[in-house]
Amino acid sequence: MNSQYQHLVQKLEEISHLNGVMSTLGWDQEVVMPSGAGEARAKQMAALAGVIHERMTDPALGEGLYELANRHWQTLGADEQCNVREALRNYELETKVPKRLVQEMVELSSRGHEVWVKARQQNKFADFAPVLRRFLELKIAWAQCVAPESTPYDANIDLFERGTTMAVITPVFERLKQELIPLIGAIQQHAERVDASCLHGLFALDKQEALARKISSDIGFDFSQGRMDVSVHPFCGGSHPTDVRITTRYKENNFAESLYSIIHETGHALYEQGRPHHLGDLPITESLTMGIHESQSLFWERMIAQSKPFFRHYFGLIQQTFPDNFRDADADTLYRAVNHCKPDFIRVEADEVTYPLHVILRYEIEKGLFDGSMAVDDLPEIWNAFMQKYLGITPPNDTLGVLQDSHWSSGAFGYFPSYTLGAIYACQFYRAMLDELPAIEDEIAQGNFVPVKHWLNAKIHCHGKRFTPEVLVRQVTGEGLNPGHFINYLKTKYSEIYRLAL
Amino acid sequence: MNSQYQHLVQKLEEISHLNGVMSTLGWDQEVVMPSGAGEARAKQMAALAGVIHERMTDPALGEGLYELANRHWQTLGADEQCNVREALRNYELETKVPKRLVQEMVELSSRGHEVWVKARQQNKFADFAPVLRRFLELKIAWAQCVAPESTPYDANIDLFERGTTMAVITPVFERLKQELIPLIGAIQQHAERVDASCLHGLFALDKQEALARKISSDIGFDFSQGRMDVSVHPFCGGSHPTDVRITTRYKENNFAESLYSIIHETGHALYEQGRPHHLGDLPITESLTMGIHESQSLFWERMIAQSKPFFRHYFGLIQQTFPDNFRDADADTLYRAVNHCKPDFIRVEADEVTYPLHVILRYEIEKGLFDGSMAVDDLPEIWNAFMQKYLGITPPNDTLGVLQDSHWSSGAFGYFPSYTLGAIYACQFYRAMLDELPAIEDEIAQGNFVPVKHWLNAKIHCHGKRFTPEVLVRQVTGEGLNPGHFINYLKTKYSEIYRLAL
Repeated sequence: MNSQYQHLVQKLEEISHLNGVMSTLGWDQEVVMPSGAGEARAKQMAALAGVIHERMTDPALGEGLYELANRHWQTLGADEQCNVREALRNYELETKVPKRLVQEMVELSSRGHEVWVKARQQNKFADFAPVLRRFLELKIAWAQCVAPESTPYDANIDLFERGTTMAVITPVFERLKQELIPLIGAIQQHAERVDASCLHGLFALDKQEALARKISSDIGFDFSQGRMDVSVHPFCGGSHPTDVRITTRYKENNFAESLYSIIHETGHALYEQGRPHHLGDLPITESLTMGIHESQSLFWERMIAQSKPFFRHYFGLIQQTFPDNFRDADADTLYRAVNHCKPDFIRVEADEVTYPLHVILRYEIEKGLFDGSMAVDDLPEIWNAFMQKYLGITPPNDTLGVLQDSHWSSGAFGYFPSYTLGAIYACQFYRAMLDELPAIEDEIAQGNFVPVKHWLNAKIHCHGKRFTPEVLVRQVTGEGLNPGHFINYLKTKYSEIYRLAL
Repeated sequence: MNSQYQHLVQKLEEISHLNGVMSTLGWDQEVVMPSGAGEARAKQMAALAGVIHERMTDPALGEGLYELANRHWQTLGADEQCNVREALRNYELETKVPKRLVQEMVELSSRGHEVWVKARQQNKFADFAPVLRRFLELKIAWAQCVAPESTPYDANIDLFERGTTMAVITPVFERLKQELIPLIGAIQQHAERVDASCLHGLFALDKQEALARKISSDIGFDFSQGRMDVSVHPFCGGSHPTDVRITTRYKENNFAESLYSIIHETGHALYEQGRPHHLGDLPITESLTMGIHESQSLFWERMIAQSKPFFRHYFGLIQQTFPDNFRDADADTLYRAVNHCKPDFIRVEADEVTYPLHVILRYEIEKGLFDGSMAVDDLPEIWNAFMQKYLGITPPNDTLGVLQDSHWSSGAFGYFPSYTLGAIYACQFYRAMLDELPAIEDEIAQGNFVPVKHWLNAKIHCHGKRFTPEVLVRQVTGEGLNPGHFINYLKTKYSEIYRLAL
């Protein structure tokens, strides 16, 4: 048996290494590839994807996995069981779907992206609708192959948020709506109480970059096992926990955007750099779910870097970096400015109070599309009606509305809930940390982030894919997913910032 | 048959695409990879190398190739025949060697590099000697597998310089010795006649980089299908003719080194960018041999960029870029300074007159090692004796002598002659261009390099692997390899620079 498991390890590590190569190609394409190399790169990535698919669907791999799972399960240690369980899931995801369906999804994803880019530019939802309609059919067919026992939308959610279903999400989102819509309304009535004007102005790009590097390094990003670069859309990529690459973009008139995007990506990066890769390049070492990944980026972006202690420490450096911009400001002015809340059309630019409503809107639309209660052609109207109902604003066009996100153009249904699950988890983790390390906010205020990083390493990062999110969160916080803490956090923080009597 | 050839094309293009991926990993490793990612990268590259080896030795590929070569050869067009011929050669190179031997060469190459780095640092040839001795045995065994009809050294040369044997090289190198040793002697007697002091001083790195980018672009490097970066050792890499990546290094006290290394690498890059990739990602589109590749880099570095017309055009810009350094200089001063000739220990820093003797020395040693007339243990003495005989200097230690090159640490015997064959070809090509485009030096003096690049594209680059070097050179110049032109060029140029009466 041991030799059979060792044989499996070899096969799984080969797949992991080839996936690492693919990630390097992806990073290269976004960050350094010459503009004229796109066609050749597409062919190179397709060749490599073909090899990876071949390895992942190797019948010998499947046989070995079933053998280990069915005949030797009890002889495996817990980590070994985790590797077999995860590998088997990946094997089944790859092999249960007919090739024809996989090919059409790949083809539509690539074509769909182009159609979406153009439709968004030209504000023509009707051009994008056929892609969306076809992807819905394909993803329903796909779900019937991989998880015939689930509803199709749950099967799609499961791809990003293992074990989390509509039965879990819907009541959580209902509660968020119930609490946040009135909170946003109250904030809006006193919008003038926060003056965010210090965020406007000109901020030299080289100073923004130096600041981003310093803060990312301060909070724990290891530049000897990672890089920071510029790309059109910020992301965290890289090929291995020892090779984690984050990107941002710098705009001369917006220092907060680049700074918070780099802190966000650093949160993802710390999770990647903290993976237990001493256990081999195996499934157990991988990050858990999109929601848990997002909890790590939001933990640093929102819970830490938009908190008072953070500005107590960094206001001096920020003022020194941009003396003209912050001459008349203080730490509290900047804290309030960064945390100002304002309903707007674009999800990726939303603040932490309005963001969940952007997500809930998408979740409800996806749910409606999958259960047949909504039709693709009606989406622009539905979108705008939801925006009005939840955020009190109506997008002037579909470019700023239903066409804003790329997710549906690649068929990524079920992804959106992870953003808000991540925000809820981040808040639960932060509370648990405060309970265990009561002086931690003083440490943060002194610029000592080491205990925070170590706490996350020990509580979350080092567990890789060992547990489900449910078990992990319970282990760290003593309870399961609970939006109550997130709601209390927002209410307390924003009633103070906006001097609301709730 | 046509479908059989199409099937072959698919297999060969897949191999080409995966090789492109490997090149991207290589570039990444040298240019941007975080220092801590080395171990993971080695595993990723090994996994990909395993896949490429599997594809290259696929028995179905071999069968298809033999079928096409033996039964359908006459029905193939010339380009198709070229693809089959080259693919068959690659297939045989990969399959004729026992796995055990391949593995030992790979293992020794990786370990040998480390041993060499340390031995060179510590000036201990005895530590490196066992690696060299074992590589010699392995490469003789390898040669007996792949080309039992050749002598082992010819088989090794053939890997880099297809169809060129000792029978061709030895008389050429004898003639070079006969002519160049006295020429160098004469130059040395009047060394004081060239004042290279303007090359010393401080040159701001950002200005060096801007100059390098401008000149590389002027001579034809297409930045939309390539990049220029910094690495420890300059190289030309990249994954495809549409993705060609060159590097250099900048030293504050040496502007000529970075400039000429970028022009050298641009020469390689123009060859790569000029490959006929419209014919598919197939063997026919690849560059011909190392010698022909080097002819392209030296064409630009030596024949163009160290010529009078080049300085006539660029002196103004160089003076403007570094006004303090060239206040009292003129185009002729700089031309003479860049072309000063001085025997020294290190091959890679050698000028065009002494460089061939560095190469000949290595060639004669490799020849002696392979035919058994020299012993590894005697190499330091032999090296130093040759240096004294050919260049009139004796290295003070082995670090500056027999340990200076990395080639032998990876078993790359037979590579060195290509450098000097390249120099001879470059000179022959330049003469042919002058014959066909008599006004070309006036164009160069006006900074118009377009006709030069077009001439090289049309005469050399676009032919890929269609011909042997012998046929190509004859087609372009009307004669085969002929060192006479190179010798005349050096004599004429240097007797003018040093005012010699030869």
